[in-house]
Amino acid sequence: MSVKAEIISIGDELLYGQTLDTNAHWMSNKLDENNIKVFQRTTIGDDEQQILNALKVAENRVDVVLITGGLGPTKDDLTKPLLAKYFGVEMVHNEEVINDITLLFTKANREVTALNAKQAELPANCEKITNPVGTAPGMWFHVNNTVFVAMPGVPYEMKSIMTQGILPKLHKMFSKGVLHHHIIKTIGITESSLSDLIEDWELNLPQHIKLAYLPTKGQVKLRLTGSGDDLNTLEQEIAVLQKAIMPKIEKYVYGFGTDQLEGIIGQLLNKNNLTLATAESCTGGYLAHMITSVSGSSKYFKGSIIAYSNNIKTAHLGVSTEDLRKHGAVSEKVAKAMAEGVRRELNTDIGIATTGIAGPDGGTIEKPVGTVWIAYSDQYKTFSKKFNFSRNRTFVIHWSALAALNMIRLNVGVK
Amino acid sequence: MSVKAEIISIGDELLYGQTLDTNAHWMSNKLDENNIKVFQRTTIGDDEQQILNALKVAENRVDVVLITGGLGPTKDDLTKPLLAKYFGVEMVHNEEVINDITLLFTKANREVTALNAKQAELPANCEKITNPVGTAPGMWFHVNNTVFVAMPGVPYEMKSIMTQGILPKLHKMFSKGVLHHHIIKTIGITESSLSDLIEDWELNLPQHIKLAYLPTKGQVKLRLTGSGDDLNTLEQEIAVLQKAIMPKIEKYVYGFGTDQLEGIIGQLLNKNNLTLATAESCTGGYLAHMITSVSGSSKYFKGSIIAYSNNIKTAHLGVSTEDLRKHGAVSEKVAKAMAEGVRRELNTDIGIATTGIAGPDGGTIEKPVGTVWIAYSDQYKTFSKKFNFSRNRTFVIHWSALAALNMIRLNVGVK
Repeated sequence: MSVKAEIISIGDELLYGQTLDTNAHWMSNKLDENNIKVFQRTTIGDDEQQILNALKVAENRVDVVLITGGLGPTKDDLTKPLLAKYFGVEMVHNEEVINDITLLFTKANREVTALNAKQAELPANCEKITNPVGTAPGMWFHVNNTVFVAMPGVPYEMKSIMTQGILPKLHKMFSKGVLHHHIIKTIGITESSLSDLIEDWELNLPQHIKLAYLPTKGQVKLRLTGSGDDLNTLEQEIAVLQKAIMPKIEKYVYGFGTDQLEGIIGQLLNKNNLTLATAESCTGGYLAHMITSVSGSSKYFKGSIIAYSNNIKTAHLGVSTEDLRKHGAVSEKVAKAMAEGVRRELNTDIGIATTGIAGPDGGTIEKPVGTVWIAYSDQYKTFSKKFNFSRNRTFVIHWSALAALNMIRLNVGVK
Repeated sequence: MSVKAEIISIGDELLYGQTLDTNAHWMSNKLDENNIKVFQRTTIGDDEQQILNALKVAENRVDVVLITGGLGPTKDDLTKPLLAKYFGVEMVHNEEVINDITLLFTKANREVTALNAKQAELPANCEKITNPVGTAPGMWFHVNNTVFVAMPGVPYEMKSIMTQGILPKLHKMFSKGVLHHHIIKTIGITESSLSDLIEDWELNLPQHIKLAYLPTKGQVKLRLTGSGDDLNTLEQEIAVLQKAIMPKIEKYVYGFGTDQLEGIIGQLLNKNNLTLATAESCTGGYLAHMITSVSGSSKYFKGSIIAYSNNIKTAHLGVSTEDLRKHGAVSEKVAKAMAEGVRRELNTDIGIATTGIAGPDGGTIEKPVGTVWIAYSDQYKTFSKKFNFSRNRTFVIHWSALAALNMIRLNVGVK
């Protein structure tokens, strides 16, 4: 019997689609890591009756109810008095909250206001959980075998309260059964094709190990989930299953678990002691951003020349005006010249270049929006590949950067 | 009486926190635009009983039920047969689906597989809604005064089906009452301070106009929501309210509605006929990415030199090795030299530069992680400002870019 949780996200702004609920996502992940099964997530508005109903329904079906939103200091926040009402208790002043806020504000040279002081009013039956980075404290209720946790909706405040206060408390209370996830990450193959490729293997998976396909933008993750009593046994079983299927999918697999494509490239470059620079036109800095989102990337990433205008392509990357005139900026010739140019100009081992039409304007019949040339250059070779991405600007930029990263992955250290 | 909708997102991967549910967010926004009130969002796993329960509960409380997930061609997708079971109908072959898939695949030079053919099996009581960009069709059911819509979970497929098929159908069916949102977007002020600033005004808002604070990373949006019978009247009332409060908050307001800071900057640059280049160290291309995420940005954005290594700062931005040695890369002197350098090298009117410690490594007692210098340079002035951002690498990068954009906003065209 696994411990079941429900996440209740409160906020009109969520239902209006004005704020993306990354909280529920992050909490789901953390609960899963702590072997607590998220049974349901419920999103409701800032409405008294609806909040009370949601609490009741959740109390009846799960062991842990996690609530975010509606705890800030401003007037549209309802949750706190409603919790007092739900549990039939008074609001009482909690001096510890004032101490926490004072401590926080002293560091930041800020004054405690009357609005902040109001935040020290808490339902009488709750345990205060310190908010290390904000003014609204977390609250822990343990009523009739159900744990209720209420936290502010500001993501970094919720995360701090969860990490430092709530998760350790939940871990102490519950610890049963074993659920083990293993994720295999692929790029360059669609969900359907991957499914065709591994069909036989999939059909023969043992009953206690399930497979799921998780397609995200430009990538497909395979998730194997085993359930049982012993983590070691599950890990070994899944390792054997993975070994059996790898030969068929190796080319597409760039990593496992929490691996990120940009991180894997960093590891490859470090291992081969190679440096990298990018020359970007259509990706406009996004490729460099992905690379530099990895901490420690300054070891292998030296810099980038973002040449949005053709003048910069000629003056700073050495692309010939003749090639630009004859073939256009979005061409094999120019892409290769950019990759070679940035490698030479920024003095790195590898240069990678993107040039394309991100849209929505600028497309022609010959070169429609989504036409992208990506070039790779190192001491052994320089080559360029044409891609046809579709949909919108955001996608063309994202897919171009992914394709460039994948090109680096497949070519680093290959003669 | 407004039309009420519920969004049901199906997928173990959502509850495990492995996939972020951007679908429900996007759909909420579109429904709101179409004057359909999202009453609740429910996220459940790939579990037969749970899906059937969710359908039943939703049918009893709303007019429109939108379901995403579980329609792909692979074996972990359950939704379609369950819908047939829920409505008590057979699955039947729908030849139109095969035609749609064939049409789609012909363009992409792909073969229809047996797996795809299976996607033509649909519950007998549904109307097929064409999926213009994928193989799993949308389905429309109208049963006992409730509309059920089922769509695949792949975001761009869901969006295509919604935009081209579902929203026009919903619009035709329902059209009642008026709900009007107006959003004021601020940067450079916290939620609490903003609340203090506008408290009197807020307390005097009329009953049918509500205010909500929507803090996101580094920005606070104010949302005024009016409900009534006539859109014009609501718009006028809200315009008057806005006019009354603007003098107090003008400095922080960068835009309204769907305005994006990066788009506003584009408009400012275009209006003043000025060009821009960035010199980025700690933001590593993210600032250029934000700027170039705006379509048409090539008119005013010329390019960037991302100088992750000090060699590039000296060789390509003209930063003196003496300044680097004496003050360090993260310093007022170097930031200013970078902004001036990129303006000169890329021949633009404005140069903006970032240099800082994004972390998690590289901090010192004097310059802890989060220390960032941002410099602005144009024909009238060059100056640099120090920021202390906290938390993690992602935040430091994001907040630095926002601060740089805000600096451009406040200085473009100002002598």
